[in-house]
Amino acid sequence: MAAPTALTVNYTRIQTLTSYFQHCRRSKRWINLKTVNRRSPFCQSLKRHVATVVSGTELARQIHKEVQSDIAKLVAQGNRRPHLSVILVGDDHASHTYVRNKTRTASLLGMSSSTIFRPSSVSQEEMLELIYKFNKDRSISGLLVQLPLPAHINERAICNAVAPEKDVDGFHIVNIGKLCLDQRCMVPATAAAVWEIIRRTGIETVGKNVLVVGRSKNVGMPIAMLLHSDRNHERPGGDATVIMAHRCTPLPRLKELASLADVVIAAAGVPHLITADMVKEGAAIIDVGINRMQDPVTGKLRLVGDVDFEAVKEKAGFITPVPGGVGPMTIAMVMKNTVTAAKNAPTY
Amino acid sequence: MAAPTALTVNYTRIQTLTSYFQHCRRSKRWINLKTVNRRSPFCQSLKRHVATVVSGTELARQIHKEVQSDIAKLVAQGNRRPHLSVILVGDDHASHTYVRNKTRTASLLGMSSSTIFRPSSVSQEEMLELIYKFNKDRSISGLLVQLPLPAHINERAICNAVAPEKDVDGFHIVNIGKLCLDQRCMVPATAAAVWEIIRRTGIETVGKNVLVVGRSKNVGMPIAMLLHSDRNHERPGGDATVIMAHRCTPLPRLKELASLADVVIAAAGVPHLITADMVKEGAAIIDVGINRMQDPVTGKLRLVGDVDFEAVKEKAGFITPVPGGVGPMTIAMVMKNTVTAAKNAPTY
Repeated sequence: MAAPTALTVNYTRIQTLTSYFQHCRRSKRWINLKTVNRRSPFCQSLKRHVATVVSGTELARQIHKEVQSDIAKLVAQGNRRPHLSVILVGDDHASHTYVRNKTRTASLLGMSSSTIFRPSSVSQEEMLELIYKFNKDRSISGLLVQLPLPAHINERAICNAVAPEKDVDGFHIVNIGKLCLDQRCMVPATAAAVWEIIRRTGIETVGKNVLVVGRSKNVGMPIAMLLHSDRNHERPGGDATVIMAHRCTPLPRLKELASLADVVIAAAGVPHLITADMVKEGAAIIDVGINRMQDPVTGKLRLVGDVDFEAVKEKAGFITPVPGGVGPMTIAMVMKNTVTAAKNAPTY
Repeated sequence: MAAPTALTVNYTRIQTLTSYFQHCRRSKRWINLKTVNRRSPFCQSLKRHVATVVSGTELARQIHKEVQSDIAKLVAQGNRRPHLSVILVGDDHASHTYVRNKTRTASLLGMSSSTIFRPSSVSQEEMLELIYKFNKDRSISGLLVQLPLPAHINERAICNAVAPEKDVDGFHIVNIGKLCLDQRCMVPATAAAVWEIIRRTGIETVGKNVLVVGRSKNVGMPIAMLLHSDRNHERPGGDATVIMAHRCTPLPRLKELASLADVVIAAAGVPHLITADMVKEGAAIIDVGINRMQDPVTGKLRLVGDVDFEAVKEKAGFITPVPGGVGPMTIAMVMKNTVTAAKNAPTY
């Protein structure tokens, strides 16, 4: 570019000045874009901020395509068709719904599956025998036991009985140990779902403050583990500064920490825990909560998350809905884990 | 108490007023205790705030007494004398010092011990054979492999080879898994040391903000695991809101989070990382850092922690020194773990 003269300097200045202004056809006025955010809310030509709603259903479809393609390749290469076996104890309505969703999705993707039902009165020994049988069965790629189990059964003993290489839920003590050591392993599906939502949406985590609300061993703890660890390790992590909050965190402190968080992951099981006043403007809000609430008007039961969705979406940068957010992604990650187990299975 | 009359009310008021004042013999003045902190720093009769320096050496002595008593009881009951075996590879000066401290302390407490030296050229197979031999040796209660190991040896494979019930370092994948699931297990010694310092000093953690700086799998991660988990679980936790910071946490954000922390645990390996401007007044500062610095004046090598001790002690409520803080406690917890292993060993 030639050396600036008085004329070019003024011309550039005019160009810059005019680029600050946009003509609004509706109000027939020029709007100064630099002051747009300070303008009166009555000015209708302003674009109101609304978060990007991240569709878990859409992301899950992407993952389904990948899984379908992997399965087709495996079968074409002469391998067994991947098979997911689910053990379901008792009559809990929610558990039956979750299992039905998993096996239906498995079929859609070209996987075979089976559900083995047992009454709530089943003994721990019967369950262990069943698990040992399935461990040895080479036609079964992935095995999961739908939780929760009846009180008389030791859940830990059951989770540790599933062969680690078939443990698509990632709850075996060796898989938990590997997860916490950043080694390659079966990552628990909900945590893996949150990870994929963050990655595929392009949400930054390196050096960011990430608040995880909820410390359950199946969800909150694995999420914290994934997000704080080193991105250069065998099982890459998010390199985020992770804040682990839970039911012993006083509410004022939770609000204070939430106001500093770039990403909030709510996995507490408390409806409307995360409100608009708590979150930082532009933050990413991942709602893992699944709460069944009775609608005060219609009397119907509906699913809500831990986040006050309508209010928070006016402030956040990204938000996941409930339903249609983490839920479908969790199922997709169970499918991914089953295919991984099938790929790693011995071929003899 | 009788209903207050004008006379009793005034008398109570005078009592209350006079209790606010203390006569200072030095300056021959009455000091209003309510305004003491707002007084001029030139007033020498003011007590300057200095943190309680928590002596790890003293706390370790308490633990040594407990261990000595446990060993005496075990032996009196006709059990084998607890025995700690340490495998030491190579010539690293610091490793040799640590191992010498451990075996010397073991002797002091009535435990037998042995150190097995191998050159840095030892192969992984030789090490595994040695570990398997010691696993089967009933006279050995606890077995530890001093880290770090030479680069050609897979540390993870070595840690997983030690029998979990003899793993006094708590690094076996099953012990890490149990730690992360709040189950009873061998807790890694440094994390156990930090826990004991906090408990025995009476530092509150329930509902408090605890900043852990450093995320190593041997130190930072286990500390975070112990402090955030539920105090009612099989392996009780601290119920604290834990913030996991590390080398990817930008310094301004570290300072911001440190200013909110009631407890700061520095395990980063960076001298003078934690400075007085960062910490909250009255916070508890646990310095896990071990850094060898050359004194600019004398040219001698000396040990410093991650905390700017002299400056921070003017502001903190509690502080651990380096040396003489976490170090002696770590050795004491290795001794505790060895006795636990001896108590749990099969007697056949």
